[in-house]
Amino acid sequence: MAKSPESEHPIKAYGYAARDTSGVLSPLTFSRRATGDKDVRFKVLYCGICHSDLHFAKNEWGMSTYPILPGHEIVGVVTEVGTKVEKFKVGDTVGVGCLVGSCGSCQSCANDLESYCPKQILTYGFLYHDGTLTYGGYSDHMVADEHFVLRWPENLPLDSGAPLLCAGITTYSPLRHFGLDKPGMKVGVVGLGGLGHVAVKFAKAFGAEVTVISTSSAKKQEALQGLKADHFIVSKDPEQMQCAASSLDGIIDTVSASHPIEPLLSVLKQDGKLVFLGVPEKPIEISTYSLIMGRKIVTGSATGGLKETQEMLDFAAKHGVTADIELIPIDYVNTAMDRVLKSDVRYRFVIDVANTLKAP
Amino acid sequence: MAKSPESEHPIKAYGYAARDTSGVLSPLTFSRRATGDKDVRFKVLYCGICHSDLHFAKNEWGMSTYPILPGHEIVGVVTEVGTKVEKFKVGDTVGVGCLVGSCGSCQSCANDLESYCPKQILTYGFLYHDGTLTYGGYSDHMVADEHFVLRWPENLPLDSGAPLLCAGITTYSPLRHFGLDKPGMKVGVVGLGGLGHVAVKFAKAFGAEVTVISTSSAKKQEALQGLKADHFIVSKDPEQMQCAASSLDGIIDTVSASHPIEPLLSVLKQDGKLVFLGVPEKPIEISTYSLIMGRKIVTGSATGGLKETQEMLDFAAKHGVTADIELIPIDYVNTAMDRVLKSDVRYRFVIDVANTLKAP
Repeated sequence: MAKSPESEHPIKAYGYAARDTSGVLSPLTFSRRATGDKDVRFKVLYCGICHSDLHFAKNEWGMSTYPILPGHEIVGVVTEVGTKVEKFKVGDTVGVGCLVGSCGSCQSCANDLESYCPKQILTYGFLYHDGTLTYGGYSDHMVADEHFVLRWPENLPLDSGAPLLCAGITTYSPLRHFGLDKPGMKVGVVGLGGLGHVAVKFAKAFGAEVTVISTSSAKKQEALQGLKADHFIVSKDPEQMQCAASSLDGIIDTVSASHPIEPLLSVLKQDGKLVFLGVPEKPIEISTYSLIMGRKIVTGSATGGLKETQEMLDFAAKHGVTADIELIPIDYVNTAMDRVLKSDVRYRFVIDVANTLKAP
Repeated sequence: MAKSPESEHPIKAYGYAARDTSGVLSPLTFSRRATGDKDVRFKVLYCGICHSDLHFAKNEWGMSTYPILPGHEIVGVVTEVGTKVEKFKVGDTVGVGCLVGSCGSCQSCANDLESYCPKQILTYGFLYHDGTLTYGGYSDHMVADEHFVLRWPENLPLDSGAPLLCAGITTYSPLRHFGLDKPGMKVGVVGLGGLGHVAVKFAKAFGAEVTVISTSSAKKQEALQGLKADHFIVSKDPEQMQCAASSLDGIIDTVSASHPIEPLLSVLKQDGKLVFLGVPEKPIEISTYSLIMGRKIVTGSATGGLKETQEMLDFAAKHGVTADIELIPIDYVNTAMDRVLKSDVRYRFVIDVANTLKAP
């Protein structure tokens, strides 16, 4: 018989978890494994709130095993390392993102693309190699195989840097992979939320000319002045879209709500790329004619592998890319979740775990 | 006032054309321009029948101007060249494909991708630079700017080579552009018609391992034995599709009828590419989840530029790639069109124009 979360492992731990599809988070006492040879144990300092934390907490993707203890934008400080750990020592600042495991032997893993490994183990809500459930960063401490632990660059802020571990790599990776990371590239960003605002920042840091594409003009000022985007167009305004026809090398689409795709294809150049990061509930609809007339590409991108995540953190530190955040105490997490649902945050909540999570 | 087809140009010509949306073709007397400085005039020997000839004849794409004189897989022999023609002389065997003009100054034209020029001029049913309608290869002779005329390789059959000018380049170009032209690549081909059977032949000539994907097992034998495909799977058989999961580097989808896309995405590897050549009436539906989990690409491809079309012909001649054809007299063309509609041809009709088209 499976043991309880509290007794299955030797090391006591505590955090905030959802017990059912209400998604309401409350304190949970659980346990974590002893530090294995290759494991890094660290005290959690900050943890970002990602929209997918909500989906998992409420089992909206139908794959949640409760309790769900979310959090995959985790920054902490190392307290213990296993005997065979080579990259880290006690006192190091580290990060953990969306993954804590993968098969290590498939083609994706061999190519440093663990995020596409069919047996990837997500940081929370998944079964680890030992058959026990993984728990995320809304907790006092974490333990993870060093392969899935990132070095934290010296001058990267811990709190506003935390969201880079998901929102950052999820936007950085497709910009790089699809060749949108060159100076002068014309890059569109659809949706100005947690992912979108970081996409704008990375694209600008790469030297691209950035156009924010939004359903209304509400976010025009924050896009142009706050985030230094070069252009802002309203996707529902045919005239503005016509002016931008065939002008973009690529678009990063971060919106998870259903929205028309054809207008986005129309503003792509020949060989332009439309990259989806979100999963609208309904399938997207495309006329293949729009693809054929310009050899346009529609694709998607998951987070990124560990090697690229490290590269992204180092790049962010060098170029001053961080998320715009609202720092909150952990007992505000349910209110924060409600506000995330309403897109009422500019642009990412980060939980001040170390200073606000109290021992039970 | 616009002049009649018969009197607008000085040179008499004749062929078979549709006068209305019935799409029925009957003899037409018309005229062609005098040979310009850069023009090549040639007697038509053979002309393939492409499914799009039907669409244009019946105005199914809503862009037809009657009379529609189809044909864009044209092989002939040069009878006259303009004073500034450099590539051809009288007596040369030549070909003309889907295009007879483009703007010559856009980015697509500059990159030898005239097939993506927004101002491309199709071989029939379009307005030429001089404002007169273009007429295709179901006719006694053609005249075209030498830039849009292809050298016919010496050992490439004239009749079974003709379809390469559309079906050939339309499949060759995406195989090359999307990197599916390397030995050992695993390539799927959906639909075994005019395009599909040539796609199989080119992919095999590139050294790829080819899987034909069909809705039924009816074409299994012809795929494996006739066309030397390596594998055959039935897309409606979940077990066969499951066995092929994540196995293909790319798929060339030649089907214009609506069909489910998700099963095709499931047999693509990480970074696999699904390339549409046809335009189903209804938009295709895709869950972005299927794209994201594997960074898969959905795209489309038009024909190809002139430079690549020449390269394709030379490659075909070298590797013995031709279409499987049924050679017909021109007065059979309406029956042939009916049979094309029913996919009742293995795999392409070619009209023996020179021997069967009688002067009025």
